[in-house]
Amino acid sequence: MLNFDFYSPARILFGRDTETKVGKLLKPYAKKVLLHYGGGSIKKSGLYDRVITSLKDAGISYAELPGVKPNPRLSLVYEGIELCKKENIELILAVGGGSVIDSAKAIAMGVYYEGDIWDVYEQGKAIHKALPVATILTIPAAGSESSGDTVITNEGKQLKYGYGSSHLRPVFSIMNPELFFTLPKNQVANGVADMMSHVFERYFTNTKQTDLTDGLCEAVLKTLIRNGPKALENPQDYDAWAELGFAGTVAHNGLVGMGRQQDWACHAMEHELSAIYDVAHGAGLAVLTPGWMQHVYKDNINMFLQFAVNVMGVQGSLREPEVLIIEAIDRLRSFYRKMGLPATLSELGIGEEKFEEMAKKCTRIAFGDEKKIGGIKELSWQNVHKIYKLVK
Amino acid sequence: MLNFDFYSPARILFGRDTETKVGKLLKPYAKKVLLHYGGGSIKKSGLYDRVITSLKDAGISYAELPGVKPNPRLSLVYEGIELCKKENIELILAVGGGSVIDSAKAIAMGVYYEGDIWDVYEQGKAIHKALPVATILTIPAAGSESSGDTVITNEGKQLKYGYGSSHLRPVFSIMNPELFFTLPKNQVANGVADMMSHVFERYFTNTKQTDLTDGLCEAVLKTLIRNGPKALENPQDYDAWAELGFAGTVAHNGLVGMGRQQDWACHAMEHELSAIYDVAHGAGLAVLTPGWMQHVYKDNINMFLQFAVNVMGVQGSLREPEVLIIEAIDRLRSFYRKMGLPATLSELGIGEEKFEEMAKKCTRIAFGDEKKIGGIKELSWQNVHKIYKLVK
Repeated sequence: MLNFDFYSPARILFGRDTETKVGKLLKPYAKKVLLHYGGGSIKKSGLYDRVITSLKDAGISYAELPGVKPNPRLSLVYEGIELCKKENIELILAVGGGSVIDSAKAIAMGVYYEGDIWDVYEQGKAIHKALPVATILTIPAAGSESSGDTVITNEGKQLKYGYGSSHLRPVFSIMNPELFFTLPKNQVANGVADMMSHVFERYFTNTKQTDLTDGLCEAVLKTLIRNGPKALENPQDYDAWAELGFAGTVAHNGLVGMGRQQDWACHAMEHELSAIYDVAHGAGLAVLTPGWMQHVYKDNINMFLQFAVNVMGVQGSLREPEVLIIEAIDRLRSFYRKMGLPATLSELGIGEEKFEEMAKKCTRIAFGDEKKIGGIKELSWQNVHKIYKLVK
Repeated sequence: MLNFDFYSPARILFGRDTETKVGKLLKPYAKKVLLHYGGGSIKKSGLYDRVITSLKDAGISYAELPGVKPNPRLSLVYEGIELCKKENIELILAVGGGSVIDSAKAIAMGVYYEGDIWDVYEQGKAIHKALPVATILTIPAAGSESSGDTVITNEGKQLKYGYGSSHLRPVFSIMNPELFFTLPKNQVANGVADMMSHVFERYFTNTKQTDLTDGLCEAVLKTLIRNGPKALENPQDYDAWAELGFAGTVAHNGLVGMGRQQDWACHAMEHELSAIYDVAHGAGLAVLTPGWMQHVYKDNINMFLQFAVNVMGVQGSLREPEVLIIEAIDRLRSFYRKMGLPATLSELGIGEEKFEEMAKKCTRIAFGDEKKIGGIKELSWQNVHKIYKLVK
């Protein structure tokens, strides 16, 4: 096990009706908040009204900034920063999924950052302060409700970069599984693929003797695989949603990756897809992950054998591990297909034209400073190019 | 799954040499700390000197209060409260195991509590403030390094009570597995039994559809069962200690019990043993747990069947679940025996004389307000009495 520093202070309020407590929970933090959200869905569902009522009951005033889109845009972040300064906002309440929360975090640090907030993403500059962020989660996937991470798309530059700081961890997140009942089927599927990938990126490792986190990763993955199809089939299945929601948090609050070398190649490769083609993050991951597995498994046969047996439940002769591994990758592909997810880049409308460009961007060759990606196997731009072609 | 409120803000610094950073880590919190510890073992091992050096390098002054014993005493707590007030202490640094940390928490709240701090334990009175506590863990078992819980023994009254508050959660805990290398074998065994019990108390539940936390509990239990004997056999096995230490934190930081009805009958029954006989907590739990299982399993056969198959790895006909469950309880007993733990109360020097008194104390019959204990099966004083007799 490697040395680590684990810190996950976000309080998670979980269960039925928890969103009605938001005003009371916010009171110690702020007199005025920015209500940040996407489109009309929270108004249609009645969530918007319940939040406003709770804020008013607690005597908390608010400004509003709707309009967050999937792959949240830098332009709206700039707008939010100005609004917060003008309105003397003390906390940002993000009501939505990962995109809304990521956008809220960008605004939160932008309020105190002198200079262009995009530099923080592009150049990894350190921040020292941010407005507090709280969330009411409506899509359980990104894990952003407990993490200090944010991903923003610079639509002008066609770049999508992430940034992380403990200053960005939400002070609390409200998670009522009932709020997930109305999600469109494709968002359910994308969310499950995204949560699984958050675990995969930590699970596949060359670090040895990591019994506990191996087991925790496997528990989260099996929970997602068991409950994803249930929620897809019966969107009102409270317990399935409860499992997915809680699993989404545990998948990405840092715990299951502690003391392990991590990977993150699939996320890096996917960010290139969504920066250029604006595809859903989860759908991109569902396409890339099995291809990545195929390309890298020979570098650590026993890790992938453990995945085959402990996660995918493959049985057979352990003396022929590759047979079991290939069966496991096939099962994973079938699972994604069952969830209605794409299996190839062409299904996402992505042709081969930009494979080389994307491979060079995500390994930073395109920017003159090569940085291989991945942990279990370091990938050059040529490796990435091969993986894109494997799943074309 | 039940509604829940999860909050585990303790930062865990884990790995080799982490204790040398303590001074730097304390700097944002305090200029003067109380160094609270047990006996001479931290001096013999050199840990004491490393901590003092780190404090001095960071310019942090300190007072000292050694002398914490297992089943930490109220009398020392009173002493610590006076000392903190006199010396204007701003933070308590607990260097030790659960007893030292629990004692530190009692002092931390006692400094601000008006009245007798024992009332908080005995009458469950609310506290509103406490000094911050930080820890350097030398025995991974109690889980006190991340929890807001504390257990104190009132030696005069022969009572041992617990109390919990989020004000008592340590701000950070340092965990270097190398510090565990010199633990006596019986403390290793007691610690493993205690950690397992922290999970058992949460795992055995009547709450349905708790896939994720079922899996997390099972992962922690299997990690403990796999690594306990390794650390016992080879006290210098860094990786085994790393697993046990990290598992001890996850076992008791709240996570694995979220959304589940919990039990805690074995802890309640054990507290009576150690209050009167001053036995090691883990040894008492190792004796009681298999007896408790025998007494309660019929109330939820499928929960115990899952334990048998998923945790103890029992195979056989699922159509005869009781056969598998009894085999699992036997295996658990064998495991404790392999760890050198006692199997009966008489091995702990406890006779039948006070069985009835203890049973009536832990169900509070003795104090005129009956309160059954347990979750998966509610236990009256007669049930508790039977369990004591089962393991006599």
